[in-house]
Amino acid sequence: MIFDVLEILKEKDTAVSGAHIAKELGVSRTAVWKQIQRLRAAGYDISGQSKVGYRLKTEPDKLWQEELEKELPPEFSGRVICLDEVESTNNLAKELAAGSQFKPVGLIVADKQTGGRGRFQRVWASPKGGIWMSLVVRPDISPVDASKMAAMAAVIVAEAIIEISGLPARIKWPNDILINDKKVCGILTEMAAEVERVEYLVIGIGLNANFDAETIRGFSATTIKSELGRSVNRVELISNIVSRISKELPSLTSGYERITRRWRELSITLGKDVRISSAERALNGRAVDIDSDGALIVELPSGERRTVRAGDVAL
Amino acid sequence: MIFDVLEILKEKDTAVSGAHIAKELGVSRTAVWKQIQRLRAAGYDISGQSKVGYRLKTEPDKLWQEELEKELPPEFSGRVICLDEVESTNNLAKELAAGSQFKPVGLIVADKQTGGRGRFQRVWASPKGGIWMSLVVRPDISPVDASKMAAMAAVIVAEAIIEISGLPARIKWPNDILINDKKVCGILTEMAAEVERVEYLVIGIGLNANFDAETIRGFSATTIKSELGRSVNRVELISNIVSRISKELPSLTSGYERITRRWRELSITLGKDVRISSAERALNGRAVDIDSDGALIVELPSGERRTVRAGDVAL
Repeated sequence: MIFDVLEILKEKDTAVSGAHIAKELGVSRTAVWKQIQRLRAAGYDISGQSKVGYRLKTEPDKLWQEELEKELPPEFSGRVICLDEVESTNNLAKELAAGSQFKPVGLIVADKQTGGRGRFQRVWASPKGGIWMSLVVRPDISPVDASKMAAMAAVIVAEAIIEISGLPARIKWPNDILINDKKVCGILTEMAAEVERVEYLVIGIGLNANFDAETIRGFSATTIKSELGRSVNRVELISNIVSRISKELPSLTSGYERITRRWRELSITLGKDVRISSAERALNGRAVDIDSDGALIVELPSGERRTVRAGDVAL
Repeated sequence: MIFDVLEILKEKDTAVSGAHIAKELGVSRTAVWKQIQRLRAAGYDISGQSKVGYRLKTEPDKLWQEELEKELPPEFSGRVICLDEVESTNNLAKELAAGSQFKPVGLIVADKQTGGRGRFQRVWASPKGGIWMSLVVRPDISPVDASKMAAMAAVIVAEAIIEISGLPARIKWPNDILINDKKVCGILTEMAAEVERVEYLVIGIGLNANFDAETIRGFSATTIKSELGRSVNRVELISNIVSRISKELPSLTSGYERITRRWRELSITLGKDVRISSAERALNGRAVDIDSDGALIVELPSGERRTVRAGDVAL
């Protein structure tokens, strides 16, 4: 109900009486007053004058489960869990998906992660104001095709950032999103699978949204807020991403060409001289293409072409 | 301590006095008497005469955690959990491995499964007396290579059955073990992974060991006991399998040729006309080889060769 009260306050530029809100929602005035108190405690600046009523002056950048559920597209039919704080959205998503929750899909969003991790178990700074989300999906694919999902997620997040913020988001292989050559988002795709088929995929998206880049100094990264000079509507951005993934999922099994094409267009890796390092070896060459599985094709100085599936890229 | 008392009884053909056992183990005679009672309750037939002592007449086919731990090879350095009954050893193994247990390896063995499952979520009858085991390993491989682990497990289990029982175990693609054309074992390999690297593999082995084939009538399967006319030592067989897997694991990254060669030798699929059915399609042809990833190479009537990674085979 707190969100219903908030909706009414947001609709009006003028003050609204408690009696009016109570009547509209079919509850008592005391019940309305309690929700106003809860909103104030959550950081909403609400003025209240007797005979005049309540007026919303400023609102905090808070993720509301109810708001998110309302904004999510009809294509997404899963359960949503919206949290103020969690250790890691991917770990919680895996736990729930393994326990047969989140069928066929599910979404966890947190305002803050206390133990966020990226690829290779690297620490991922996840302060308040970011978009730390994990989407569980269960496409009927083989584990070999999971890399397609990872490349698809990179394309989709870049497209969503461009649409919502207008910022020039680009992809760095395999699935980092950069703005003006600085990392703004990392994607960690995990799976549970049998040898022949995927049981579920967890698409973890860590997006530096509404906090200052200085907050994560040392990570040579940027944020949407720092690049744009203002915050974006996180619910809108999350919903845009979820909507795109929901619509694009079937192309994992048929019609993947659009993703490969868009990946090429949005890539900052292709055409560049790269150094790729993995646990076993390092490789220098020119990134010339990605294949339909999301692997990078690198041309060595000898002219020989190598397909690279894993590793870090330095441009 | 119960197992120590049992060991002493097993060593002697004659009766052993309670006083002797108590002295050898450095415990009281009452403590010995209590363990004798526990052994009797577990199905051991132990005669006891005053002035003469205890004598083991017959022992049940019971899996003892202590015995298993003692028999496991030094190459296996993980925790062992031996259970009378469990829903599914693979499910428990995944739960423990996800919660960061079983590092780097771990083993679960149960005498009975109440909810055993095979590939494609099929019911797997798992009565008392079988070998229902799940081994957790963490090789440094890509998800693409998980099929190598599955093929390796099939070779190893066939080799272990041949060594321990002398029965002609053979492999039916992808990883069923047959004796005299009847299924005696199924292997279900599951994984948790990022796109680029496997976090852990769970090798689930369901082996129809020491029960009568009639027990699982309707599954068109056989058991070691029915084929051999007697039971085998399950601890010896489990230990043989775990030892072989522990030693062979490094060949996932280098030196896999032995497995491919042995797979070909032990296969009943190669050279046969096969029909392969999967969710999407059926395929008729002749199975001519497996590749280094464990995929089946099928030659169609047109002469065209297809690489098949998933599906059911009918010979």
